[in-house]
Amino acid sequence: MLTRPKRLTVLGSTGSIGRSTLDVVRSLGGAIEIVGLSARSRTAEIGLQIREFKPRAAAVVEEVDGDIEAICRSTGTRLLRGHRGLVELAAFEESDLVVNALVGAAGIDPTLAAIGAGKDVAIANKECLVAAGGLILRESERAGVRLIPVDSEHSAVFQCMRGEDRTGVKRIVLTASGGPLMDLDRGALARVTVSEVLKHPTWRMGPKVTVDSATLLNKGFEVIEAHWLFGLEADQIDVVIERKSVVHSLVEFVDGSLSALLSAPDMRLPIQYALTFPERRAAAFSRLDLIATGAISFERPDLERFPCLSLAYRALEMGGTAAAVLSAADEVAVAAFLEGSIEYGDIYPILSEVLSAHVPAEASGLEAINRADAWARSAAGEAIEARTR
Amino acid sequence: MLTRPKRLTVLGSTGSIGRSTLDVVRSLGGAIEIVGLSARSRTAEIGLQIREFKPRAAAVVEEVDGDIEAICRSTGTRLLRGHRGLVELAAFEESDLVVNALVGAAGIDPTLAAIGAGKDVAIANKECLVAAGGLILRESERAGVRLIPVDSEHSAVFQCMRGEDRTGVKRIVLTASGGPLMDLDRGALARVTVSEVLKHPTWRMGPKVTVDSATLLNKGFEVIEAHWLFGLEADQIDVVIERKSVVHSLVEFVDGSLSALLSAPDMRLPIQYALTFPERRAAAFSRLDLIATGAISFERPDLERFPCLSLAYRALEMGGTAAAVLSAADEVAVAAFLEGSIEYGDIYPILSEVLSAHVPAEASGLEAINRADAWARSAAGEAIEARTR
Repeated sequence: MLTRPKRLTVLGSTGSIGRSTLDVVRSLGGAIEIVGLSARSRTAEIGLQIREFKPRAAAVVEEVDGDIEAICRSTGTRLLRGHRGLVELAAFEESDLVVNALVGAAGIDPTLAAIGAGKDVAIANKECLVAAGGLILRESERAGVRLIPVDSEHSAVFQCMRGEDRTGVKRIVLTASGGPLMDLDRGALARVTVSEVLKHPTWRMGPKVTVDSATLLNKGFEVIEAHWLFGLEADQIDVVIERKSVVHSLVEFVDGSLSALLSAPDMRLPIQYALTFPERRAAAFSRLDLIATGAISFERPDLERFPCLSLAYRALEMGGTAAAVLSAADEVAVAAFLEGSIEYGDIYPILSEVLSAHVPAEASGLEAINRADAWARSAAGEAIEARTR
Repeated sequence: MLTRPKRLTVLGSTGSIGRSTLDVVRSLGGAIEIVGLSARSRTAEIGLQIREFKPRAAAVVEEVDGDIEAICRSTGTRLLRGHRGLVELAAFEESDLVVNALVGAAGIDPTLAAIGAGKDVAIANKECLVAAGGLILRESERAGVRLIPVDSEHSAVFQCMRGEDRTGVKRIVLTASGGPLMDLDRGALARVTVSEVLKHPTWRMGPKVTVDSATLLNKGFEVIEAHWLFGLEADQIDVVIERKSVVHSLVEFVDGSLSALLSAPDMRLPIQYALTFPERRAAAFSRLDLIATGAISFERPDLERFPCLSLAYRALEMGGTAAAVLSAADEVAVAAFLEGSIEYGDIYPILSEVLSAHVPAEASGLEAINRADAWARSAAGEAIEARTR
């Protein structure tokens, strides 16, 4: 067998996961060839990436300046523009694997495009699985492509299930570091500032996901993702706090054994696993020292102080477009919090209000999901306005 | 596909592992049929087992009384006698799987007989793999049969490696509870009594293995077993102390991820896994409550206080018959300690002395192993005598 490099397209290459993906590609030597890159608006950064990796195509969604055009000419890179360009890049026929490192529901149609073109997708774009998980799973089964999780938790579950029969799985246990606010009481939580929220104790991530980690809604989204990725019901998906972020998740089998995946909290590990799957390649990233790690313990999340987690279970129970609504409303609420227009303590009531007002429709097609998304954004906007008036 | 019960022979059915095996068989309903049972000398107990399971054959090694003959007549069980009967039972053609729950090197030829007859062997008999691991592995490969570990640690490694490519494995980490003497200083260790040694904090096992757990030589034997079972070099097999005995071992992969197997410390779990492999069956045994478990931590074993562990690495390094010698000398030394003829503190120097005096031969056949075994027993006997004079 002739082995050629795996050809990779990275959607969202200038974000946190996108940059880590390129780090992994660099560290893997020639095993992976970058054939496509995309950015929303960070043209200076994607310009440097294009110079370095000389992809066959690149997409820039929001603004295309003269520099980037010149760079692409010099590297022979085809430049695609706008959301349509992004979707076209996702389906780019010269790639073997597409990393979806986009943020938000804007990742849904590129994902469907990649799947439709028969590409395996390494998926780091939570909102996409949360809002359109049923649709994406159905399409990936139809196309016979593989969805490989990139999130450390889902990658852990994916790894722990490897070689196991699904009928042997009783439940999974997603771990949460608990985020920076774990030990604050309700009073302190109500007054917490943006900069406090952004100080995540173990993981370095983008601001949106860091806020979601603090509210535990990020974990809630992961519950919804796991529901789709692993075909599990809500009552088969538990969440525990593991503050050191070294146990990335566990799978409990019907016989009572649990398999756990441990490593240093370094996103490059699950990213590399997704890129090299089904192989494991040697990595020179942070290694976990079991002894230096000290005590590892598991705590039950406090739903009184972190009620956002229960919203995800509520959305799963409501079914249909409810998860899309929760995800879209959260994008709006978190943006408002980061801009300073609402308090941390407003996030839950706003989301709860929007979810309660939603009448779920079947999430069978992109149209229904987009309608729910738009409704949720407008409902969240109104709820925010009502609070800031 | 017609599914009939898996037909099982249990060698050593009246010992700790043997009895737990029968518990598992009972709990599995009709999935497993007992076709053979054996005991060394506990005829009353095997008599009850024969009445209950009505095996097609049974072997009693040391003494056969009239009762057992009458029971076997009433259940239509063929009664085999002596070590030769045990070997014959191991090769019993009507079984699909043989559980070797024997203690000591006496388990070697029944194991070879089972393998020679084309039976898969679930192996709980440590000394057998320690003394004759190379031979047993070679024969099992030749016969195309599977060796399934029963020890909780090796079962954990076996489970964590499932679905993984061996080239992806960097090392394994065997866990040890540390045993009852973990916190004693060297002075206290020298004076420790038999009853203190037999108070194991987490596992209930037979006396020989409980003493070996206290000295950590049991863990050393597991290192040797793992060397054979998983084809790993000594420097790929580490040992850590995990006092709660809920993490049964870990596998570290080349990418830096570690897979761990957790469960309540209940031998019925790895036994059931071995019996139902490759399936997992629901079990109603003790379940692990992650949250109630509290802090889990890993400590480096103290080789100053527990030097017996290093003897196993020394034996692996010496190669050939050295491990057989260590195992046989340990049987003699532990028996002498349990009888009160030597102190706990004498075990290490006696073993070390015997090992140092040994000139290893190739452990390619049963004869060489038996010769080394006999030499070690006599050398250990002399060393004990020199101390008790």
